[in-house]
Amino acid sequence: MKRFARPNIAEMQGYSPGEQLQDQNTVKLNTNENPHPPSPAVEAALAAVDTAKLRTYPQPTADHLRDAVAEHHALARDNVVMTHGGDEALRLAITTFIAQDQAFGMAEPSYSLYPVLAQIHDAPVIRVPLDDQWAMPASTAETLNSAGAALTCIVNPHAPSGKLISTQQLSVLARQLDGLLLIDEAYADFVEPKMNYNSSQLIKEHDNVLILRTFSKGYSLAGLRLGYLLGPAALIDPILRKTRDSYNIDYLSQQLGAAALLDQDYAASTWADVRTQRKRLMMRLQELGFTAPDSQANFLLATMPSSTPMSARELYLYLKEHQILVRFFDTPRLQNKLRISIGTAQQNDRLIDALVAVLPK
Amino acid sequence: MKRFARPNIAEMQGYSPGEQLQDQNTVKLNTNENPHPPSPAVEAALAAVDTAKLRTYPQPTADHLRDAVAEHHALARDNVVMTHGGDEALRLAITTFIAQDQAFGMAEPSYSLYPVLAQIHDAPVIRVPLDDQWAMPASTAETLNSAGAALTCIVNPHAPSGKLISTQQLSVLARQLDGLLLIDEAYADFVEPKMNYNSSQLIKEHDNVLILRTFSKGYSLAGLRLGYLLGPAALIDPILRKTRDSYNIDYLSQQLGAAALLDQDYAASTWADVRTQRKRLMMRLQELGFTAPDSQANFLLATMPSSTPMSARELYLYLKEHQILVRFFDTPRLQNKLRISIGTAQQNDRLIDALVAVLPK
Repeated sequence: MKRFARPNIAEMQGYSPGEQLQDQNTVKLNTNENPHPPSPAVEAALAAVDTAKLRTYPQPTADHLRDAVAEHHALARDNVVMTHGGDEALRLAITTFIAQDQAFGMAEPSYSLYPVLAQIHDAPVIRVPLDDQWAMPASTAETLNSAGAALTCIVNPHAPSGKLISTQQLSVLARQLDGLLLIDEAYADFVEPKMNYNSSQLIKEHDNVLILRTFSKGYSLAGLRLGYLLGPAALIDPILRKTRDSYNIDYLSQQLGAAALLDQDYAASTWADVRTQRKRLMMRLQELGFTAPDSQANFLLATMPSSTPMSARELYLYLKEHQILVRFFDTPRLQNKLRISIGTAQQNDRLIDALVAVLPK
Repeated sequence: MKRFARPNIAEMQGYSPGEQLQDQNTVKLNTNENPHPPSPAVEAALAAVDTAKLRTYPQPTADHLRDAVAEHHALARDNVVMTHGGDEALRLAITTFIAQDQAFGMAEPSYSLYPVLAQIHDAPVIRVPLDDQWAMPASTAETLNSAGAALTCIVNPHAPSGKLISTQQLSVLARQLDGLLLIDEAYADFVEPKMNYNSSQLIKEHDNVLILRTFSKGYSLAGLRLGYLLGPAALIDPILRKTRDSYNIDYLSQQLGAAALLDQDYAASTWADVRTQRKRLMMRLQELGFTAPDSQANFLLATMPSSTPMSARELYLYLKEHQILVRFFDTPRLQNKLRISIGTAQQNDRLIDALVAVLPK
């Protein structure tokens, strides 16, 4: 039989998303969703939708959302392009900026979708191994530049560890890099406010920085598929006018996204609760013998206690049997670890109870 | 200033979508939307949405929609991949199947997004000029094969003319082509039932045929962004598992799309009305001296009457001033023509009244 797929597509493996069980009794701590429902303002916006409006094409560039996002970050409309989830933002950055014979750069380990998107684009992937503390080596820029990385994606706070690097460190990296630096801030809403993390200034200081944000986690809207890129107008413009699908943001996302963004009080209250629960869960895990370093994201990366003969994979399967989903990554460096999304107090308690039952006293 | 965009992106022009004025008084006959609102079942599905469900990621492959679509076309789930509008279907076909040094094939004139998507992919575009009756020359396959076209898109009914070619003719072309044939059926819902047009059998008979469908026109859901590809499982699989964004169909589209698809009676009633209005509008335009050949789509391609010194562009601008939008394509072959979407009886009357007022008696 004739093969039609491109060679790079035929050879690659697809991305494996975390399990999306719809069972109501399952405690789902595997794909980093916000444990709280969307803002009541989203429900009101949905109720106010005139279905007849779905008949026509949406405003092509979602300009009222771009304006709301720009105001939120003290930037201009030209610094914003809305995307169909953060995943589309990553794909568009790769499509727009990585030419033939140029490479894609990333830290290892990191978001496992990155290399998949690079493979679809047929771009070589340059992986910079993080050290034992999940920090980037001093030689990072040198490695990426010499390999011809046109675009490097750094997720901050880091996934799967939750470690935050400072805007100062990002600024140094941006200056050193020959190519673009995309800072994937999928989890930035969960950073402790006292850390004063705010990277949007970077796009005024550098011509090669893009920042990715998503409504999936911070605004409890993973089901909606809405995200955006911030950047200098010269970087946003070709995405907005050329590489983006012409009507990439549907009418409902434009309405509901704006409602969610404007209700900052509600969103901030969910972030505060996640931080409280994160601290509490971290302490309980440590009491049970796990190593679970400080995280600025809405998940913890827990290393198995030395007191148990169980492997991380075995514990993952045990929890799954007990209707608790966490994420196990079958890679050498993450072999003895589980990534656990922060749930509600009740969900976290169910996890802890299940762990207490199976781990040695 | 350093340029970061890829050379092909920097050099290209983006796609120009038709104007999307939100003014309630404007008669919008420029972007081929269905003039009727979506089914009441869509409104009911929207009202039944539990906003809390938006918190989690949607089912990644929209399987219940795939099943409904498969049943509708008497195919299997493996023959279907849902897409974020028809535009995503086109992009994914290009991404998945056109390798480096392979080309993209199309008829000329045709949907102006095709060459834009090929340029983003940096694939050469092979244009086969249609004859005066918008028919493909006998040498079409030879031209495309010798130029190395890995994928050819043919819109049927044709845009902007509305001409329908038969499944027999498509079958011959598919057999002759070395590469894939994507039949873009964006407007197929508006074909006269008595023509018995049904191409889904083609994907059982050919290993190189993909069929594109959209909810934008037939189901009055342009604002939702929902479409799909039908094809042999071997062609659908790499799109579904590899090149598609992992969660490309949001939760609301999955709910509303299923509701729209299941209410076939309502959808069919809108198609029947569009056909009635199409016939009526065609006759009125012919009475006014336009040439407006038979169309199987929800638009007419009208050639300016010889009795007026006005150019098509001037008439387009005149109508726009009078709050009636039609589509003018500024290309040599379409210079003396306007593409007019079929509106409601009332909208079409407003157009005719405006034409009567400006054209010679």
